[in-house]
Amino acid sequence: MNFLLPIIENIKPLDEEWFKFAEAKQQQLTKPPGSLGRLEEIACRLSAIQKTLHPTVEKRRIVIFAADHGVASEGVSAYPSEVTAQMVANFYSGGAAINAISKTVNAELHVVDIGVASNIPIGNIEDNSNIRLINHKIRSGTNNMTYGPAMTESDLCMSLQTGLEIAQQAKEDGVTLIGLGEMGIGNTTAATAITAALTDLPPNQITGRGTGADDTTYKRKIEVIERSLKVNSPNKNDGLDVLRKVGGLEIAGLCGLCLGAAASGIAIVTDGFIATSAAAIAVRVCPTLASYIFASHLSQEPGHAALLNLIGLEPLLDLKMRLGEGTGAALAVGIIAASVAVFNEMATFKDAGVKDSEKILPA
Amino acid sequence: MNFLLPIIENIKPLDEEWFKFAEAKQQQLTKPPGSLGRLEEIACRLSAIQKTLHPTVEKRRIVIFAADHGVASEGVSAYPSEVTAQMVANFYSGGAAINAISKTVNAELHVVDIGVASNIPIGNIEDNSNIRLINHKIRSGTNNMTYGPAMTESDLCMSLQTGLEIAQQAKEDGVTLIGLGEMGIGNTTAATAITAALTDLPPNQITGRGTGADDTTYKRKIEVIERSLKVNSPNKNDGLDVLRKVGGLEIAGLCGLCLGAAASGIAIVTDGFIATSAAAIAVRVCPTLASYIFASHLSQEPGHAALLNLIGLEPLLDLKMRLGEGTGAALAVGIIAASVAVFNEMATFKDAGVKDSEKILPA
Repeated sequence: MNFLLPIIENIKPLDEEWFKFAEAKQQQLTKPPGSLGRLEEIACRLSAIQKTLHPTVEKRRIVIFAADHGVASEGVSAYPSEVTAQMVANFYSGGAAINAISKTVNAELHVVDIGVASNIPIGNIEDNSNIRLINHKIRSGTNNMTYGPAMTESDLCMSLQTGLEIAQQAKEDGVTLIGLGEMGIGNTTAATAITAALTDLPPNQITGRGTGADDTTYKRKIEVIERSLKVNSPNKNDGLDVLRKVGGLEIAGLCGLCLGAAASGIAIVTDGFIATSAAAIAVRVCPTLASYIFASHLSQEPGHAALLNLIGLEPLLDLKMRLGEGTGAALAVGIIAASVAVFNEMATFKDAGVKDSEKILPA
Repeated sequence: MNFLLPIIENIKPLDEEWFKFAEAKQQQLTKPPGSLGRLEEIACRLSAIQKTLHPTVEKRRIVIFAADHGVASEGVSAYPSEVTAQMVANFYSGGAAINAISKTVNAELHVVDIGVASNIPIGNIEDNSNIRLINHKIRSGTNNMTYGPAMTESDLCMSLQTGLEIAQQAKEDGVTLIGLGEMGIGNTTAATAITAALTDLPPNQITGRGTGADDTTYKRKIEVIERSLKVNSPNKNDGLDVLRKVGGLEIAGLCGLCLGAAASGIAIVTDGFIATSAAAIAVRVCPTLASYIFASHLSQEPGHAALLNLIGLEPLLDLKMRLGEGTGAALAVGIIAASVAVFNEMATFKDAGVKDSEKILPA
C-alpha cells in the first residue's frame, strides 16, 4: 500500500508548544485551575492539532460507511443482511437515531455506500438536504471470512482510497471535526475478529451480542470468529493484513478516513466498537495518529474497552449504548463543542475583574 | 414550613402507565431493543413526567442561585467572598463557563441573587439579553455556622419561597427542563456539612478541596465542618433542619426550586456537589421527588458520590469536573435533548420498511 506512505508521513506528532500555550490560556480563564476536567484537555488537544489558541469545530461532520459482510451468511446476527440497505434508506429519509442526534449537535451527516449488498430502497424518498448519500460501492459486501480473506488486495486498496477521498473532501469543505459512523449487518463479528487479532485476547472473552444475538447465535458467532482467525492467520503486527483478512469494506473506509483526516489536521471522534476497530487499525499503521482521536463513548460490546485500552484512549461517555451509526460520536461532538466554546468565549480573570486565587490565598 | 405541604402533595409518583407506553414505543423505533442504553430510560422517564409519548425539552433553563456564606470568614476557600459578586457580574457579561456551555445546548440562563454579600459590579456592563439577572436578595450571606445556625427560620422560609417562585415563573414560561446551578464562595463547606449530616459519613471522608484549597486550608475546612456539626446538631431526619443549620441561602433556593419544579411536572437536572446537596434535602423532604431528577455528572468532590447514592441516582457524565455554575447540568441537557430527539423523531420499523429482528431470527 505505497499510496499510504505520503499520508502517514503527513501525520505529525501533536505540537507540544501549542499544547502548552493552550494550557497556559486555560489557567487565565475565570474558573479554578483544572475545574473543567476533561473539557480542558479536549480544547488543549484541539489547539495543538489546529495550531491556534482559537480552535474551531464549527464545521463538524459524521461520516457513516455502510457495507455488508459475507460472514453474515453464517447466521451471526439477529438481523438479515438486507437490513443494511434498509437502514441506509432510513438514514436518507431521516428516520434513524443518528439523524435525530446529529441534528441536536449541528453536525452534517454523510453516508457512504462502500459495499452494501442489497438494493437501497430510496426510490420513493424525497431528496433530503440534511444528509448526503454518496455512492462509492466497491463491491456488494465482503467474502465470507470463514473460507479465506474477507477482501482482496484490490478491495482493501480501493476502500482505503475511498476513505482518503472522503477526508480530502472534508478538508476542502472546511470540516475540522469528523465523527466516525458505520452500518453493516455482521460487522461486530468482523470487529471482534480484528480485536482478537490485534490484542491476542481469545474471542470468547471479547465477543458480544451485537444487535442482540440470542444464545445459539452468540455461541455460533464466537465459533465463526475463531474459525475465521484460524483460516486466515492475520499478522497482528501488520494492521492492513488484519483488516483485509477479517475486516470489512466499511471498516477499511473508516480506516482510510482516519489516516486522511489526521494527515489533514482534522480531529477524529470515534463511535463504538466497530468504528474503534477501524481507528485501532489506523493507529497500528501509524501510531502517531492516536493523538488526533477523541474516544466518544464506551460501548456495551465487551471488546470495546480492550480496543480503547490498546489505543490508549479514555472514552468521554458511558451511556450503555451499543447502536453504532455514529450515535456515540455525535453525542461526544456536543461535549467537544462545549469544550471549545468555553475555551474561546470565557473571560480571563483580568478582563472580568475577578480575583485570581493565587493572589488572595486566605490568611 | 406549612406552605410546603400543598407543594409536596402535588409531587406525584411517576406515572407507571405512561412509562410503560413509552417503553413500548422505544421497542418500535428502528434500532435494536435497548441499544441506546440510558438515552432510552431518559425519554421514558420524561414521557411519564409529562404524560405524553411526545415529551419536550424545547424550553430549557439553567437557574443559578448565588449567595455568600458566613463560614467563608474561617478561611475555608481558595477565593475570598467578594468573588461571588464578581462571578455574578461575569455571568451577566457572558464571560463565565456556564455562559459558553448553556449557549451550546440552547438553554436559557437565569441568575438569582438570593444572598450575595458584596456589591455586584455590573455598572459598566451592557444589558445582556442572553441572561436574566434576578434580585431576590434575602440577606447578605448566611451567619457563620461554626457559632450557630447558618440561617434563621425566616431566612430559610424566604429562600424556599424564592425557589418556589422561580419554579412558578418557569412553569408560566413553558419551561420543561430546569438545570440547577450555584455560585457561592464557601459553599462546598456547607454542602459537605449537609452531606455529613444526611449520610452520617465523617467529614474527613467526604471533604474535598472545593475551588482548590491548599493543604492548610483543607485541614481547616474539615475542622470547621466538624465544629459546625457539633455546634448545631442538625437532625438528619429533618431535611429542613439540616438545611437551615449548615446550609446556605442558594442551597435553600435550589431546594425550593426542586420542590416547585417537581410539583409543576418540570424535570430537574442536577449539577455537581452543591446543587445535589440541595436536591438531596428536597428528596429527604419529599422522597417522591427523586423520580423527577436526572443526575448530570459526577463531580470530583468526594462527597458527591455519597449524595447521589443517597438519592439513588446514577450520573450521566463523568468528566472530572468540579466547577459548579450549572456547567455539568448544561452538558447533561445536551444528552437529555438527544434522548428526546431520538424518541420523537425516529421512524418505526414499520414506517421505515426495516425488518424487525423478531420476525427474522436467523436459521
